[in-house]
Amino acid sequence: MNDKARVVIVGCGFGGIEAVRSLSKAPVEITLVDRTNHHLFQPLLYQVATAGLSAPAISAPIRHTLRREMKRGNLTILQAEVTDIDAANRRVLLDDGAALPYDHLIVAAGATHSYFGHDDWAEFAPGLKTLDDAFKIRARVIGAFERAERCAAGTERDAEREAWMTFVVIGAGPTGVEMAGTMTEIAHHTLPQEFRRIDSTRAHVVLLEGSDRVLGSFVPQLSQRAREQLERLGVDVRTGCKVIGIDAEGVTYEARDGDHAKTWRLPSRTVIWAAGVAGSPLGRALAASAGAVLDRAGRVIVKPDLSLPDHPEILVIGDLASALSTPADPSKGKPTPVPGVSPGAKQMGRAAALNVMRRLKGQATQAFRYIDYGNLATVGRKAAVVDLTVPRFGALRFSGYFAWLFWLFAHIWFLIGFRNRLIVMLDWGWAYWTYERSARVVAEPPSPRRDPGS
Amino acid sequence: MNDKARVVIVGCGFGGIEAVRSLSKAPVEITLVDRTNHHLFQPLLYQVATAGLSAPAISAPIRHTLRREMKRGNLTILQAEVTDIDAANRRVLLDDGAALPYDHLIVAAGATHSYFGHDDWAEFAPGLKTLDDAFKIRARVIGAFERAERCAAGTERDAEREAWMTFVVIGAGPTGVEMAGTMTEIAHHTLPQEFRRIDSTRAHVVLLEGSDRVLGSFVPQLSQRAREQLERLGVDVRTGCKVIGIDAEGVTYEARDGDHAKTWRLPSRTVIWAAGVAGSPLGRALAASAGAVLDRAGRVIVKPDLSLPDHPEILVIGDLASALSTPADPSKGKPTPVPGVSPGAKQMGRAAALNVMRRLKGQATQAFRYIDYGNLATVGRKAAVVDLTVPRFGALRFSGYFAWLFWLFAHIWFLIGFRNRLIVMLDWGWAYWTYERSARVVAEPPSPRRDPGS
Repeated sequence: MNDKARVVIVGCGFGGIEAVRSLSKAPVEITLVDRTNHHLFQPLLYQVATAGLSAPAISAPIRHTLRREMKRGNLTILQAEVTDIDAANRRVLLDDGAALPYDHLIVAAGATHSYFGHDDWAEFAPGLKTLDDAFKIRARVIGAFERAERCAAGTERDAEREAWMTFVVIGAGPTGVEMAGTMTEIAHHTLPQEFRRIDSTRAHVVLLEGSDRVLGSFVPQLSQRAREQLERLGVDVRTGCKVIGIDAEGVTYEARDGDHAKTWRLPSRTVIWAAGVAGSPLGRALAASAGAVLDRAGRVIVKPDLSLPDHPEILVIGDLASALSTPADPSKGKPTPVPGVSPGAKQMGRAAALNVMRRLKGQATQAFRYIDYGNLATVGRKAAVVDLTVPRFGALRFSGYFAWLFWLFAHIWFLIGFRNRLIVMLDWGWAYWTYERSARVVAEPPSPRRDPGS
Repeated sequence: MNDKARVVIVGCGFGGIEAVRSLSKAPVEITLVDRTNHHLFQPLLYQVATAGLSAPAISAPIRHTLRREMKRGNLTILQAEVTDIDAANRRVLLDDGAALPYDHLIVAAGATHSYFGHDDWAEFAPGLKTLDDAFKIRARVIGAFERAERCAAGTERDAEREAWMTFVVIGAGPTGVEMAGTMTEIAHHTLPQEFRRIDSTRAHVVLLEGSDRVLGSFVPQLSQRAREQLERLGVDVRTGCKVIGIDAEGVTYEARDGDHAKTWRLPSRTVIWAAGVAGSPLGRALAASAGAVLDRAGRVIVKPDLSLPDHPEILVIGDLASALSTPADPSKGKPTPVPGVSPGAKQMGRAAALNVMRRLKGQATQAFRYIDYGNLATVGRKAAVVDLTVPRFGALRFSGYFAWLFWLFAHIWFLIGFRNRLIVMLDWGWAYWTYERSARVVAEPPSPRRDPGS
């Protein structure tokens, strides 16, 4: 064991898992470290937040996901938090004071929310990155209707009830669009028969976006389709709105009114943040310890082979990396940024593993090339947009019911673990026919004695 | 609406739900109040704690469970915490300061853990009553193996590793027996291939019981069978052990050693409390406000018709009630205590509803009679004990594989909601064939920087 190169991989998202898989047959000793015990299928996390799926349906214990690799005898998995990286001595420091020495380090620690310098907004507008975030959002969304029902007892509480019935999603990227679309579905189809004093179909779901269109990573035609589908579902889509304040009682934003910018106030007790992401704090640790340079979003700027300029033994992948894709024939195109999507993370995981193996053999590393298969986003029931890149054909774009079916099967297909796929199919089949959502359960009720919105 | 009698029901466990159902066709205006938004199938809660089922599989939103009753137009459901009962003015007080006036009150607020005056033990030995409790226990059990794997790095940490590999369950009632049996199954069948440094099959599961046998509510022969089955599964069953201390590092107990009582110390970082229950704090509220008398366990002593001696308009049912079952022919038998099981709560719910309706019609109330269909407890995979009361036949007692199958189908049958039954069957079928547990996911990792055991 001592003569083998030691590879430490931090993070078990799509990138980290792929790196372990690619390296597990190599003559290396691998240690995978993650804060949690599970690999999360993040593209479906919004379904946990909106009570469509239970947490175990979209997450698998890492030890189970990597059980085949464990059997090869060169993988150790540790559930621990990485507190720092000591690049000079090639050690990863853990929360219990232990140090993991490495010869090669792959950092795949992902991203977190960014409130663009307004960290005080986090309390009132939770983001969606972890299972805990999803439970928090589920509790708030479901709890808001309960609070509205209670307010309805006295007419003097009309304004309060309206604020509980108003849901604001900030940011119209894929997560924001999914959340807004699904929330209208809950209000219009799941809950209507279940309240006595309020009419859940009168819930007001607002999607606020700073730019002039939703799903900015898609071509404008598909953005337009997505917007139409959202509006058909009942979402109040407001683009060109710059949020300037969030508190317990609502959201303040600036938007044009004719020729002038005007400040608007939207009273709401349930606000969800889907606007900004930032690289994990381990990016800053790499900056301090290994001289890494970060971009504006706190992501680590890596070389074409995914390593750090001064530390070829440290590679950064996934959402924490600000990476460029080098074209197959560099004379025919320019490097392009790798998008922060799961195929990007997986491909970087494999590329990083291959470059570690090349270095072990004394070979030169290779520049990373991202293969873009396209882009999907769902809007809600029977509504999605698909932009596929088909080799030798070009772009294949469609929206609506077939796009939604395509999205559905693609996501079930890529869900890790056969059993989870079965459960998700069953849950979704059930939800499709009955409109009932299977996971509408809140473990800890939000205490009404806390501040509103907390 | 104003001329109808107002019935307030507190708590949506088995008793409260049955009371609503029985009253929903009566000319009354019903308000159901519960702290949570879900009805919990508590007999399977240990499966959530041991990662066999997800929370939504055993819990249904109250509004969904009672959707048919909602349609009749005389039921209001409020998610709120009852802070006090003002019996003089016939009002239930809620956490937001609101007051619910009632003409008839049914209190079905259930039970909580009792540490027999040692509330400081709660921190180190969580009990199992709510979904939150189950998540906490799941996180500790799964986290303990993770911590053991980390400790295994240094040999100087052998004692710490052993303490992480030792699991103590206190109390050998149905919950304690289920927990201990299932934990050995996890250690022996689910985890073995998944760790590198520890051997999960060497986990030590200890079941501590104060009396001289397990499952004391069963006949001695079935207790003996259950003990044999537990020991076959690998549980270290220790009866006649009185716990005198629990702290972050383990459990201290007294037991006989030959002729003397001796104090023993069992180092363990994962202790589960399944020993004592106490009536909900609302029992004390009834004592202060309505002159109710409580038994030693804090349960409200009710009259044969389930009402309070000085307040015929207040009825107490379920685990919060200390109730007697009046025999059909009082000359042929004596009243017997109603056991704290779900059929008891359901039958009391129906009886309380009927007595409210009798009072509305000016009729005399009826004494409650508990119909005992028997008693089941599962021990683990393919192991259970069954004690059925068959009318005109007598007792039918059996244990082992067939008892387990019987237990399995009985529990799936009584699970509320068809969809949940399907999911549970699928989960269990999968677990049976693969030994894999579907919900081995911990949302928030226990931070190792906290005190051990927290």
